Amino acid sequence: MNLILSVAYRLFMEKGYEHTSIQDIIDHLGGLSKGAIYHHFKSKEDILIAVTDQMTSESNQMLAEIRDRTDLNGREKLKAIFKESINRPVQNEIYTVAPSFHKNPKLLFSLLHDTIDCAAPNYLLPIIQQGISDGSIETDYPEQLAELILLVANAWMNPMIFDSSVDETYRKFMVFSQMLEGFGLDVVDEDILERLEELTSIYQKSRQ
Amino acid sequence: MNLILSVAYRLFMEKGYEHTSIQDIIDHLGGLSKGAIYHHFKSKEDILIAVTDQMTSESNQMLAEIRDRTDLNGREKLKAIFKESINRPVQNEIYTVAPSFHKNPKLLFSLLHDTIDCAAPNYLLPIIQQGISDGSIETDYPEQLAELILLVANAWMNPMIFDSSVDETYRKFMVFSQMLEGFGLDVVDEDILERLEELTSIYQKSRQ
Repeated sequence: MNLILSVAYRLFMEKGYEHTSIQDIIDHLGGLSKGAIYHHFKSKEDILIAVTDQMTSESNQMLAEIRDRTDLNGREKLKAIFKESINRPVQNEIYTVAPSFHKNPKLLFSLLHDTIDCAAPNYLLPIIQQGISDGSIETDYPEQLAELILLVANAWMNPMIFDSSVDETYRKFMVFSQMLEGFGLDVVDEDILERLEELTSIYQKSRQ
Repeated sequence: MNLILSVAYRLFMEKGYEHTSIQDIIDHLGGLSKGAIYHHFKSKEDILIAVTDQMTSESNQMLAEIRDRTDLNGREKLKAIFKESINRPVQNEIYTVAPSFHKNPKLLFSLLHDTIDCAAPNYLLPIIQQGISDGSIETDYPEQLAELILLVANAWMNPMIFDSSVDETYRKFMVFSQMLEGFGLDVVDEDILERLEELTSIYQKSRQ
């Protein structure tokens, strides 16, 4: 099942979702039969959903843990999320594989909808609501702020979606943090900026 | 040529780009030959690019006119753009046709890249630079602010991409305006809010 997903992910990225057939996936599974795939998945669309879920599950796990901590206020939780997100070791791998969504807008679309429909209400929203209560975040529209933050962070600042130089990524992050200041939030520190530059340069090298 | 584009646009939206063949487009053109299409376009990808260009050309024309006005400062130009964008009569049509990008992530991707690669540097950036000079906009990163504003406005706040109720759209706009306040910008007024609600309800009705 995990092998099916990792093969499917690689093929979707290399050939594009629309140009990958279930037969292509089987051909790369070394002897697994069509029946075995259909035992797990009804359709190619089902495989896409499972691939998306896998891409987001580790991140959602981390968001849940920080959300449930009792030693931090709202602002501190948001800051912890930013730090965790860019410090997870898996990020190095993701950036080294250097997949691009250019060939695969369908997977991108699926990820963005997952961000808006699932991650925003379940993980970021309770943190923002806590921040409003404890006075560390200012807004009358917590649901929409949760969406905005995740969309900007996961889409615009994602070098797999919008190719950015190290310098551009740094500048995007500074604008993102200025945007957050409009909501009373100050989440950026030196550690975060340093790590961000490191990740972007790993990604750039892998594409050369 | 215009007929080819409008037929292609409709088919891309209804069937999805990947599931629309050049033959499908010809079949809906009433007697035009394959040769006639290939006289204008080398490939289906070429047709997609032309459809995207047509979708953005009117908007870009408006952006150019406001950018080149000499009677407004940077902040006033941004406000004029928001007003124009939501007041153009064509918007009613677009919303009434109620296309959805759900079936057509490739066209969406193409539009977003056009926004970032073309509209941001050519139209919004000069206005933001003017605003920095005249003191009406505060940022050290005008290129990135131009991208952020267009991405949020054209993607997140676009009911064709993210289905929103009237109330949600209103709330998104309020968060968008709070985000802009972080950059010293105050562009929202009663007219803008009223028009926004009107457009969203037209869109919702058309989907019932």
